[in-house]
Amino acid sequence: MRNIKLSIRYDGTRYAGWQSQKNGLAIQDVVEDAVRKITGRKSHITGSGRTDAGVHAEAQVANFKTRSKIPLKNLRMALNSALPDDIIVSNIEEEKADFNAQKNAKSKTYRYSVCNSDFMDPFVRKYSAKCFYLLDLDRMRRAAKILTGRHDFSSFQAVDGGRKNAIRTIKYIRIEKTGDMVYIYIEGNGFLYNMVRNIAGTLIETGRGKFSLDQVKKILKKKNRRYAGPTMSAKGLCLVRVKY
Amino acid sequence: MRNIKLSIRYDGTRYAGWQSQKNGLAIQDVVEDAVRKITGRKSHITGSGRTDAGVHAEAQVANFKTRSKIPLKNLRMALNSALPDDIIVSNIEEEKADFNAQKNAKSKTYRYSVCNSDFMDPFVRKYSAKCFYLLDLDRMRRAAKILTGRHDFSSFQAVDGGRKNAIRTIKYIRIEKTGDMVYIYIEGNGFLYNMVRNIAGTLIETGRGKFSLDQVKKILKKKNRRYAGPTMSAKGLCLVRVKY
Repeated sequence: MRNIKLSIRYDGTRYAGWQSQKNGLAIQDVVEDAVRKITGRKSHITGSGRTDAGVHAEAQVANFKTRSKIPLKNLRMALNSALPDDIIVSNIEEEKADFNAQKNAKSKTYRYSVCNSDFMDPFVRKYSAKCFYLLDLDRMRRAAKILTGRHDFSSFQAVDGGRKNAIRTIKYIRIEKTGDMVYIYIEGNGFLYNMVRNIAGTLIETGRGKFSLDQVKKILKKKNRRYAGPTMSAKGLCLVRVKY
Repeated sequence: MRNIKLSIRYDGTRYAGWQSQKNGLAIQDVVEDAVRKITGRKSHITGSGRTDAGVHAEAQVANFKTRSKIPLKNLRMALNSALPDDIIVSNIEEEKADFNAQKNAKSKTYRYSVCNSDFMDPFVRKYSAKCFYLLDLDRMRRAAKILTGRHDFSSFQAVDGGRKNAIRTIKYIRIEKTGDMVYIYIEGNGFLYNMVRNIAGTLIETGRGKFSLDQVKKILKKKNRRYAGPTMSAKGLCLVRVKY
């Protein structure tokens, strides 16, 4: 059996997220269908992790095992022909037999995009949230520093997230601006349900002056979701890198 | 009467082009509807020129006359609330009474975008054409030089374009590359129907090695549409600047 590793790029707008589920079309299902169509056999695709409904990926990583002997380059071309135009395999490699895209993932980097303008740019409207209030990036960066490192992120977990152990490590939070677009990059070893979108919401509330830096410290200490900022919309979130 | 000048940004995907017509929804109609809704009166909107069905604009310029006394900033906000999310007014100014967005336009700059990769990036698929063959930018730039300046562009006019005088001046053609994306910028004092898309098609055929530079010279001399490259798809074209 060959163990094939894929880098997958997708516009998540019309999908119910990465993972197969009862309601709605999942990206995993679509990729599994393409693999079955091309290799002639059903293979289970393991993704590095879930992305929620409407979330995008520049480089989701997944792997599957197959007896197919199709050369890698041809396999990638064939998969891309079988996939719809909002999902593509941007890279393909053969991995060792024990490689597992989920278990071996060391860290993930997400980007949250915000159009910081009094109008929403039509060309990014499906890939970013908006904030009409001018964001103070310096203030956001100082708040980001408070959240960086190893902490109990209970305050940033979805109310129904239900993880008992909410301790995670954020390696960095980087905030960049290009034109009217503000980008929040977050790298961590793992994230709780809605954690990135809740951190983005808290940083944005801080950047527009609603939260003080002291409040951000308190939010983290409270370990209670109700204190943090809003959950930002899924469309602004994109998985940009998975490290192994 | 006030004479209001608008900068309009639109994703042209679902429109039958800028100009009102019998079949299909035009961007001009949508903007006129918004103006009527906000000012309470019908105003004719004059655009700098047509853009075809499916063509985008980062900065189309248009003007209209109104008796409305709404301050400019509020007018812009109100128009943006009334417009759908694929059309926005990015700038608004008051102009002299005799300003006409069409007649006073001195030059226009278009950008043609090509995803030069063996797969189409899902995030730009609605805003660029694709070319699987690696483009030789240096060759494209040399071909672009041949077309720059004052020429009879009959060979680059749509077959049913029907303009007797096909002499136009191209101020510059600039070719840039960022990652897998190749951008062709063309500034000119006026363009024939399909001229930018036909020039883009010719430059791409040259860049992938189908046309020699001598052939490009011949195409221009022939003054016959059948010799030039294909008309590239509308979705890759964007009006990026109108100079006055």
